Amino acid sequence: MSGPGTTEPETALARVRVVLSHTTHPGNIGAAARALKTMGLARLVVVNPRQFPDAQATAMAVGADDVLDAARVCASLDEALAGTTLAIALTARRRDLSPLALDLRAAGGLAATEAVSGGEVAFVFGTEMSGLSNEEVMRCQRVAHIATSATFSSLNLAAAVQLAAYETRVALLGGAAPEPDRTPPATHEEVESLFAHLEASVVQSGFLDPDNRRRLMERLRRLFGRARLESQEVNILRGMLSAWDQGPHKK
Amino acid sequence: MSGPGTTEPETALARVRVVLSHTTHPGNIGAAARALKTMGLARLVVVNPRQFPDAQATAMAVGADDVLDAARVCASLDEALAGTTLAIALTARRRDLSPLALDLRAAGGLAATEAVSGGEVAFVFGTEMSGLSNEEVMRCQRVAHIATSATFSSLNLAAAVQLAAYETRVALLGGAAPEPDRTPPATHEEVESLFAHLEASVVQSGFLDPDNRRRLMERLRRLFGRARLESQEVNILRGMLSAWDQGPHKK
Repeated sequence: MSGPGTTEPETALARVRVVLSHTTHPGNIGAAARALKTMGLARLVVVNPRQFPDAQATAMAVGADDVLDAARVCASLDEALAGTTLAIALTARRRDLSPLALDLRAAGGLAATEAVSGGEVAFVFGTEMSGLSNEEVMRCQRVAHIATSATFSSLNLAAAVQLAAYETRVALLGGAAPEPDRTPPATHEEVESLFAHLEASVVQSGFLDPDNRRRLMERLRRLFGRARLESQEVNILRGMLSAWDQGPHKK
Repeated sequence: MSGPGTTEPETALARVRVVLSHTTHPGNIGAAARALKTMGLARLVVVNPRQFPDAQATAMAVGADDVLDAARVCASLDEALAGTTLAIALTARRRDLSPLALDLRAAGGLAATEAVSGGEVAFVFGTEMSGLSNEEVMRCQRVAHIATSATFSSLNLAAAVQLAAYETRVALLGGAAPEPDRTPPATHEEVESLFAHLEASVVQSGFLDPDNRRRLMERLRRLFGRARLESQEVNILRGMLSAWDQGPHKK
């Protein structure tokens, strides 16, 4: 049932993409396509896959050829995340200074809320062996952990995709409600433009020599990622930065 | 049951305070004390009550005289929030640009998580007639709404306190887990010192004339409130501000 103002789960599911970064085995890309489709998702994005398209991918997709054929191949994670307003990194390792961590159920709920609110969501998965790089994780606003066994945590890539898609679907069918009085969230591109400006301003001000800025930028990414910036907030912050760039105001 | 590293619900409940701002009727303060005690809470703080201590308060406390007698009277909300790492404002009205809004169950869960993680939590309630002022709300990091009937939403002050205390207790007994790898959150005082510095820097830089700064400061409070700053982040931001205050670096 749906009345005016509600979003059909299908419409919301169409706003969720799954991003696979630097996948080693093409079979996993095919299996991920299948996992997506079973949960009503359709948007697969692959970043620098080792081998794709590939016969093994097609073989593993079984009936999800449409999802696989429509998969977008990108040269960078930034390209894959273009237009997103929420990116959730799936990671197994706990990291120092990571984005805010959620369990998978909470991550699915957040993704569902964002999608029914009109946002664009990405779940981001790294390589089979080593997962996501720190730099990739820091381009996301949330990290999701899957509650695997402490003694055997080695989850297959497509199985992880399956679980994330499932939790998102369950949350949507369970009636995830749009955020009330939502203000437009910043897109990935807007957020990245802010970080570029921040980095330049911090160096120009002499607060930090360029050698140490990586750590500072990670801290700032973590802080603003946690806040999940709005579009207008990015404009305000960039305006403030521009004023500081000029130095103290002469009366 | 509890093992090493777990926090007893009692210990966590002792980290939750209830703040009543500008309460009109002393009877409500007594009834709130009673509501607290039924849920295992003990820390009541009153900000500028119209009349307190008062015989009506004592009469309504019935058996919670200890909580009432231990109630702290403060002259300002800042004083009442000193040392807190999470302040949740209870409001009925939806507001423009408010802190992040939660339903009461989510607010109770968040309070429980914060308390078992070692943080200091405040639930903040306004006057019987008009609730909290906008300025008071903006000193909190979250807003909680109670899902009252759309046609009759007039909840008694002590009843609202009862519900908030109940949800916090249920979340604690339900096994709220401490945040993993927690870094020290900023206290109310640290956060306020940052906002004072930010305001001065923004005016000094010429970004904004002093007349318009109230709205900007509300935006910034909302943004950083959403992020829930860490202690170290406040230090980093203040360091950056100090550098910008000096103007561009001369090589």
